Amino acid sequence: MALIIQKFGGTSVGTPDKIRNAAKRIIHAVNEGNQVAAVVSAMGKTTDELVRLAGEITARPSKREMDMLLTTGEQVTVSLLAMALQEAGYEAESLTGWQAGIETENVHGNARILNIDTKRIQEMLADGKIAVVAGFQGVTGSNNIATLGRGGSDTTAVALAAALRADKCEIYTDVTGVFTTDPRVVQHARKLPAISYDEMLEMANLGAGVLHPRAVEFAKNYGVRLEVRSSTEEENGTFVEEEASMENNLVVRGLAFEGNVTKITIEDLPNGLNTLSSVFSLLAENGVNVDIIIQSVNPQERTNISFSIETAILDETIELLQRNKSSLQFGSIVHEDGLAKVSIVGSGMISNPGVAAQMFKALSDHQIMIKMVSTSEIKVSTVVDQQDMIKAIETLHDVFELDARQPVQQL
Amino acid sequence: MALIIQKFGGTSVGTPDKIRNAAKRIIHAVNEGNQVAAVVSAMGKTTDELVRLAGEITARPSKREMDMLLTTGEQVTVSLLAMALQEAGYEAESLTGWQAGIETENVHGNARILNIDTKRIQEMLADGKIAVVAGFQGVTGSNNIATLGRGGSDTTAVALAAALRADKCEIYTDVTGVFTTDPRVVQHARKLPAISYDEMLEMANLGAGVLHPRAVEFAKNYGVRLEVRSSTEEENGTFVEEEASMENNLVVRGLAFEGNVTKITIEDLPNGLNTLSSVFSLLAENGVNVDIIIQSVNPQERTNISFSIETAILDETIELLQRNKSSLQFGSIVHEDGLAKVSIVGSGMISNPGVAAQMFKALSDHQIMIKMVSTSEIKVSTVVDQQDMIKAIETLHDVFELDARQPVQQL
Repeated sequence: MALIIQKFGGTSVGTPDKIRNAAKRIIHAVNEGNQVAAVVSAMGKTTDELVRLAGEITARPSKREMDMLLTTGEQVTVSLLAMALQEAGYEAESLTGWQAGIETENVHGNARILNIDTKRIQEMLADGKIAVVAGFQGVTGSNNIATLGRGGSDTTAVALAAALRADKCEIYTDVTGVFTTDPRVVQHARKLPAISYDEMLEMANLGAGVLHPRAVEFAKNYGVRLEVRSSTEEENGTFVEEEASMENNLVVRGLAFEGNVTKITIEDLPNGLNTLSSVFSLLAENGVNVDIIIQSVNPQERTNISFSIETAILDETIELLQRNKSSLQFGSIVHEDGLAKVSIVGSGMISNPGVAAQMFKALSDHQIMIKMVSTSEIKVSTVVDQQDMIKAIETLHDVFELDARQPVQQL
Repeated sequence: MALIIQKFGGTSVGTPDKIRNAAKRIIHAVNEGNQVAAVVSAMGKTTDELVRLAGEITARPSKREMDMLLTTGEQVTVSLLAMALQEAGYEAESLTGWQAGIETENVHGNARILNIDTKRIQEMLADGKIAVVAGFQGVTGSNNIATLGRGGSDTTAVALAAALRADKCEIYTDVTGVFTTDPRVVQHARKLPAISYDEMLEMANLGAGVLHPRAVEFAKNYGVRLEVRSSTEEENGTFVEEEASMENNLVVRGLAFEGNVTKITIEDLPNGLNTLSSVFSLLAENGVNVDIIIQSVNPQERTNISFSIETAILDETIELLQRNKSSLQFGSIVHEDGLAKVSIVGSGMISNPGVAAQMFKALSDHQIMIKMVSTSEIKVSTVVDQQDMIKAIETLHDVFELDARQPVQQL
């Protein structure tokens, strides 16, 4: 008898019909002889509505009270899902975070799970009951309700799978799996049968909608085998696991991309030991999320620093730098917006030198100018003109033979 | 420094504006130097909406899961009220039933409070914080969430007042207090400055909207001093307490009444030892709520039994009796509908014989026929034609000088 954790996100439990559908998924697994613990999010737009309600009371709600408020969302879903299972004739019981023994650190809004006391769930499973657990929430050592932050229900599911040594953690969502790239952009995008944890993390900006990076890290650390799959379609999803075997000796697993990127260059900085640290500490302390960073030194012992950011925060970033011009001692700032980042991801790159070169050549052959480059062991990112983004993705999808193996899967 | 429990019902916290208003009430008491614990219900129609949602999943939701679902309503309110208090610059913290230490028996839907572990609330109050407690809910010994049934938030407030030995428990509602009778019916109805627990219980059909009888009983048992008052008006409310002094030597405190009463008479029953028991056990087992009961014995050692019920359950009651005609061995059933019950209530009656006679004479003087009579130590109830009900109430309100002392208070 296997133990399966099934996680249903907000869109998969957004209506009574969808809740009944989630119940069917659980029942299917139970009828196949498995023990099942389900983890659910708040129904559809519930969280947004609660946030709006708080906004009518105060513009600065305390995090403790927001946690108290928001966690009602999952509590509603677990009770309804348990009712749906009971209505179908199955023994089920809903559990809040504190009832499920999910202990978090003593912070609000973004708490980490410290421990899961699985006694109650294990007794339920041993009694033949289905445990329906509220995602996204836990209880602190001082008996306050805390939330786990964005993607929290994924984290609950993975943590529960780790604590219960579950055989598998299934993440049900509104897509059928993880694709080589976004199928809304590249028609030939193909659903991957498997992907490694690290690759999944590098694909985060594509995968965030289906699986939160924090949950992937947790799964990697505890060796939890994940399957991302559709809550409505029957087909197999994508396995996320340590050693996802590479089919057909391909070195690239998928393509990640994002538009609305701006490159900022701070020119003529002192080439001191603490220059980088001064610039990026200032940015970090002010909440500016920096992506790619490039430093180049010119002959006069002065240096230029370039970095990329979301275009949305361009104005505030430049204003912040100008306010600190005298302390940073730079000459001038230039920026270039209308850019996009296109990355190839694959753990096969580690043992295949020349993959980056192959990427640069493919882009160059198609007259696509590369503005910035950044590499990791399993990823090569390039920044290009946003108007070249689709062409770059389609080119790379072809060059690295990502649609070579199977018929196309549609979203 | 006094400790005050303030309870706000669903209509008093139905919107963000009303929640802010409740916060003002609490702050007013804090600014006068009191410690305050607030108990709140779910916002307005929230509970109805949650019940409707469950109805879309199943027609027979389990009570445990309904409790899980419904208790989210109060959890939303406590967090919003705590936010409103914080926004105004006061230290406040919301507590669910389990966080507030409210332990109930191990049943769902209608659990009784077994114990309140007040440690956490007392620490909060000692730290100068306002405790905002979810009404209607508690936790069972096996860590399940249970609700207290109808009027549950009143009960939470009174139980908390008893456990904390509070100086006063204020019940905020949408009327300004308890009246001599319903001011929508009798224009001269007067708000009572005080009423005893027993009188309040006898006035239940008038008072149910402002204070649940179960909470009144609890208050009586633990000597908790209640004040029923308006959440929007500044004026004093009505105190409910053990020895509510009678003003001006009045013997009657108020008038209770209800329409849509039907009198059923079962004729020609065997006058045996177990006749009454057989009839009323049958009715009770089938959920028929009987009010006044009269038995009269005729010379042939056969007996007639009359009782009053709500007209709404007339058909099912007669059908039930007819189905059991052979076992009950009665002759026939007659009924009279279109009746009403009018009662006078006052603990002064105990020491004033002749109050019932005074009531009967007043009704008789106004050509109002009395169909049934029932008395308790502090109440005399009469059943009259419904078309005489208003006349009877106005007559009795005058005769017992209920509007003699003060200008009229409007609802």
